[in-house]
Amino acid sequence: MMKSNGVKILDCTIRDGGLVNNWDFSVDFVRDTYEALNAAGVDYMEIGYKNSPKLVDADSAGPWRFCEDEFIKTVIPEKKLTKLSAIVDIGRVDPDDFVPRSESPIDMIRVACYLKDIDKALDLIESFHALGYETTVNIMAVSNSISSHLVDALQKIEESPVDVAYVVDSFGSLFNRDIEDLVKLFKEHAPSKRLGIHTHNNLQMAFANTLCGINLGIEFLDTSVFGMGRGAGNCQTELILGHLTASRYDMKPILKLIDERFVALREEVEWGYNTAYALTGLFNEHPRSAIAMRKTEDKDRFFNFFNKLTSVETHSDIQ
Amino acid sequence: MMKSNGVKILDCTIRDGGLVNNWDFSVDFVRDTYEALNAAGVDYMEIGYKNSPKLVDADSAGPWRFCEDEFIKTVIPEKKLTKLSAIVDIGRVDPDDFVPRSESPIDMIRVACYLKDIDKALDLIESFHALGYETTVNIMAVSNSISSHLVDALQKIEESPVDVAYVVDSFGSLFNRDIEDLVKLFKEHAPSKRLGIHTHNNLQMAFANTLCGINLGIEFLDTSVFGMGRGAGNCQTELILGHLTASRYDMKPILKLIDERFVALREEVEWGYNTAYALTGLFNEHPRSAIAMRKTEDKDRFFNFFNKLTSVETHSDIQ
Repeated sequence: MMKSNGVKILDCTIRDGGLVNNWDFSVDFVRDTYEALNAAGVDYMEIGYKNSPKLVDADSAGPWRFCEDEFIKTVIPEKKLTKLSAIVDIGRVDPDDFVPRSESPIDMIRVACYLKDIDKALDLIESFHALGYETTVNIMAVSNSISSHLVDALQKIEESPVDVAYVVDSFGSLFNRDIEDLVKLFKEHAPSKRLGIHTHNNLQMAFANTLCGINLGIEFLDTSVFGMGRGAGNCQTELILGHLTASRYDMKPILKLIDERFVALREEVEWGYNTAYALTGLFNEHPRSAIAMRKTEDKDRFFNFFNKLTSVETHSDIQ
Repeated sequence: MMKSNGVKILDCTIRDGGLVNNWDFSVDFVRDTYEALNAAGVDYMEIGYKNSPKLVDADSAGPWRFCEDEFIKTVIPEKKLTKLSAIVDIGRVDPDDFVPRSESPIDMIRVACYLKDIDKALDLIESFHALGYETTVNIMAVSNSISSHLVDALQKIEESPVDVAYVVDSFGSLFNRDIEDLVKLFKEHAPSKRLGIHTHNNLQMAFANTLCGINLGIEFLDTSVFGMGRGAGNCQTELILGHLTASRYDMKPILKLIDERFVALREEVEWGYNTAYALTGLFNEHPRSAIAMRKTEDKDRFFNFFNKLTSVETHSDIQ
């Protein structure tokens, strides 16, 4: 067990899990999740994306992809200790959709971006910050970024008003020593920022990397109930709650929620570690090919999948 | 990826996996496993227990629980690069069953024991050593042992002829820092011995703890194909092979073996991480209650299981 001075758990089940079931969660499901997270002492619940219906195909996904304030107020009429966050994507968000935090049920806005979009991300963060929101910047695919580009971005982050800078293992390809290297870089070039970590479980390293992050002083820990998240999923909320000794945390409400909600959902849709995700993780690739392969009748042909991932046809174009 | 100077992979699928299916593997299955491990460059294959049919209920388990020399010779008539090991349990082994190594297909005998049986284990090891076998001592349930008792045992190990002393995480309850503490103790009190590590995946730490062990200089790594082993299973052979850079290792034959053999077997019998095993791991308990619970209709009632594990009835007797 581990002391947990100052850590904050941010459960992103509905948001990252929505990538698995196209955000097809009922209002009751999300409400039960909020109640359980609150009873468990979880600090934040990420209730979805706050993208603009004008900028994405609005008919094809549930309301958790847009998180309109008035709708969220009907879902959670009385907010308790657990704060709410929502994430936005560059190019899919309209800053005019946002009212001041004092009028919104949302407390924190997180901006996900690729390294090349860091300026756009920080412009957005400035506007959210001015409206009173807590903010984070989550640079995706950092395992594929060039170190000098990351340093440039971190220097801009240091000068911005953003509250938290996240280490994001988009491909689930990082090991403890990679987390150590990244945290060192983040601390060197953005020393005034609080840090967060978002892991994926392709190599069964999501929990281990999160623990490594805690030891390095990372404060914000992304987790999800039953590990629900894209592909191999995330670090399990229940494992972190069970491991940390802080008296405000209690894993029992999450176990109850798993029994009542997530076991059945897992029968319907697939997420979590399997060998295909391990292979994209080992190759430091986006999991999309593994996700696609798991929806075919060849879903358990891992040798075949390995050969596709390493074939000349796939890779000769990047010589 | 990681350098792998000097590590040895010991695949224990048939032995630890036999605890899942009562050693009900066909000869063809075991032969295919040997061929694949050999093609993958795996250093040792543990082909089962070498217990005495006189001392266990011989009718109730497959031949991999006894590993009689003449039978093993018919299974693997021509041994290649991969060596064979077998494990024995204190009280279930008869030293008179063993011929000299030069006449046996088995290269290494491993002795599993609880701390209280260390003298019996080292007596056995002395006799196996005299017959020419490589030997290891695997102290089980070390996470529940008292440090001074472990130190006493390690001092005896240091004075014995055993080749390898194993750090065994029987309950899957250890984290990196526990592995660090144990390795420190092993190195201090048994400095001349080579070290091994055997992990379980209750907390999804099997791979991470094995990597931690490599960094600490552990040489012998226990793994199993598709993670097959008791309860939450072991560190996956395919993950270790994929991660280590040694040119003698190749994960492809193991992927092929998984596709052809282990996917179907996993449909028939259950092993691997789930929340019940996480709970016994968190509580540092033997997984037997979780294994039993997974065979009932309440197999997904994790909240209920948590309550049983923490009830006064279960624990008041040890005050």
